[in-house]
Amino acid sequence: MRPLVVMVKGMETAYFTNPNLSAIKNRFDDALEELVLEKLSDDEAPAMSLARDILLSGGKRFRPVLALLAHEAAGGNDDSMIMDLALASEIIHTATLIHDDIYDQSKTRRGMPTLHTSHGLSHAIIAGDYLFVIGFSLGGRYDNIIVEKLGKSAANLASGELLQFEHVGNFSTTPEDYYAIVDGKTAGPFASACACAGIIAGANNQIINSLETFGIEIGRAFQLVDDLLDLTGAPSMGKPRGTDVHDGKMTLPLIHALTLLYGPEREQLEDILNNFSDDRWQELTVLLNKSNSLEYVKQLIKNHINRAIDSLNTLPDSKAKSMMMEIAKESQNRKL
Amino acid sequence: MRPLVVMVKGMETAYFTNPNLSAIKNRFDDALEELVLEKLSDDEAPAMSLARDILLSGGKRFRPVLALLAHEAAGGNDDSMIMDLALASEIIHTATLIHDDIYDQSKTRRGMPTLHTSHGLSHAIIAGDYLFVIGFSLGGRYDNIIVEKLGKSAANLASGELLQFEHVGNFSTTPEDYYAIVDGKTAGPFASACACAGIIAGANNQIINSLETFGIEIGRAFQLVDDLLDLTGAPSMGKPRGTDVHDGKMTLPLIHALTLLYGPEREQLEDILNNFSDDRWQELTVLLNKSNSLEYVKQLIKNHINRAIDSLNTLPDSKAKSMMMEIAKESQNRKL
Repeated sequence: MRPLVVMVKGMETAYFTNPNLSAIKNRFDDALEELVLEKLSDDEAPAMSLARDILLSGGKRFRPVLALLAHEAAGGNDDSMIMDLALASEIIHTATLIHDDIYDQSKTRRGMPTLHTSHGLSHAIIAGDYLFVIGFSLGGRYDNIIVEKLGKSAANLASGELLQFEHVGNFSTTPEDYYAIVDGKTAGPFASACACAGIIAGANNQIINSLETFGIEIGRAFQLVDDLLDLTGAPSMGKPRGTDVHDGKMTLPLIHALTLLYGPEREQLEDILNNFSDDRWQELTVLLNKSNSLEYVKQLIKNHINRAIDSLNTLPDSKAKSMMMEIAKESQNRKL
Repeated sequence: MRPLVVMVKGMETAYFTNPNLSAIKNRFDDALEELVLEKLSDDEAPAMSLARDILLSGGKRFRPVLALLAHEAAGGNDDSMIMDLALASEIIHTATLIHDDIYDQSKTRRGMPTLHTSHGLSHAIIAGDYLFVIGFSLGGRYDNIIVEKLGKSAANLASGELLQFEHVGNFSTTPEDYYAIVDGKTAGPFASACACAGIIAGANNQIINSLETFGIEIGRAFQLVDDLLDLTGAPSMGKPRGTDVHDGKMTLPLIHALTLLYGPEREQLEDILNNFSDDRWQELTVLLNKSNSLEYVKQLIKNHINRAIDSLNTLPDSKAKSMMMEIAKESQNRKL
């Protein structure tokens, strides 16, 4: 396992360039490694060991780093109080990725074959369930108010996923539908992690609410950046483009373009989305430029980030708060 | 939703003939109905409503009834202390059934189409995940010792499922392999529900251990009865036979027969299992009679039931204890 962990530590600078942030991510990765050694190492079932590898093979660690920072910014001074929550949020996130990859029929994840591709459907379902159990067991150690919040956000995540399915290929999906999906599957888990971090730090309600707002807003920005990257790609970072378009997912740039275009252009866009293939990128890009949809979404991202940063006004200044603001600002430039 | 609940209450007498047991099952079904109305009713996503229907459409309620009884037998006198655990155990069990049905490719469950059959893979995976969340949130309300135990048994359940897959179609599966699988996927959850019930009742360690043994032993008996029913069927109860044989699952009667038969008979048995079809029942039955495997398993069931009953010796006599003994004795005659 060691070589994998070394690989993780080699990769982290790719995302967090600030050494202080990088140090926080290191603390999290150390805790994750320790947990894996303690909990997952006696289990040599092949899907378990692959679930373990996926857990250790990197990822941005956005959720747990934000949870650690939110805890500190809210006055928490003992990492050990919040680490289980950070671990739970990352592990539950990984479990959902394993299950998502099954029904999205994704072949690779973080440069490795997805579990269902390498080990079959049953093993991937079970390995995801197993990680859910580990994650929920960690979350279950906290007071009921935390358990309730984590449970609610995980349930909303499932509802968000279902809602997304209902809207696949549906060209009348509205921005409201879109935000209902995103708040369930992406922003909600960010928000509950940040709010719970505040509760664990013993902060007052105003601060807890501010952290929740921060989580919601940065989560929405995060998803919109993902939407953009799906359309623009970042080939130099190994980030493929067009996955959402192929899957018929109604991302906000597409919803915006469908709303603004009309007549033959709208028909052409529908035709591209209904019969998408890689040779239609040029056509799609021309239409998205015509409706100015990418610029529109970039502006929305800025708005969400500004709201996230503003929400922190109620918190006293601190190194942790500055780092949260930095993460928020940087998130619009994310390339992976 | 009401008509469904009425259906549940109509069905329950099919399993528990003792009116006291039936009353306990009613108490559980009422609590489940209340939870569903409170938690799952605002969610009209189709897979959720089907998950809700599956939850309410019956089932033996073996696990929650035993948890309620174990709590009372261990000195607990307030149902509300144990009900969340009973609900958690049934809901997590239902979640695993939904996921099991996917990879076992089962078409029906409790007389209804399975979720993946009616709503597709994605919805079935997500609905199962959703129920996991609801179940774990309920379990997460308890002290850490309970959360740990529930988490461990759910993790072992996943390991047991994986182990079972590794042994599909493997004719050298040993009884030890078999019990490792069963203790993970069936007996473990029974044992943790009973032991946790004792902890919640504030019982001493001796009683908690006795309840854990009771759970393990009755869980093993339960699985062996399932194994028998798969070979003998109970057509009058709508219980189909041969599902395990078709799936290549190494149940104990088959392991026993493979061990005892030799030469051409062993070859014939391997051939039947490798190329099973309904017109080979007669052949299979002759071989199982020759090796006396069904009788052997019936004797094992008796042994496990006796051990379960003996384990209750450390508990003071009570109505609840008598009902646990009755459930244990009756379980060998189960036809569904």
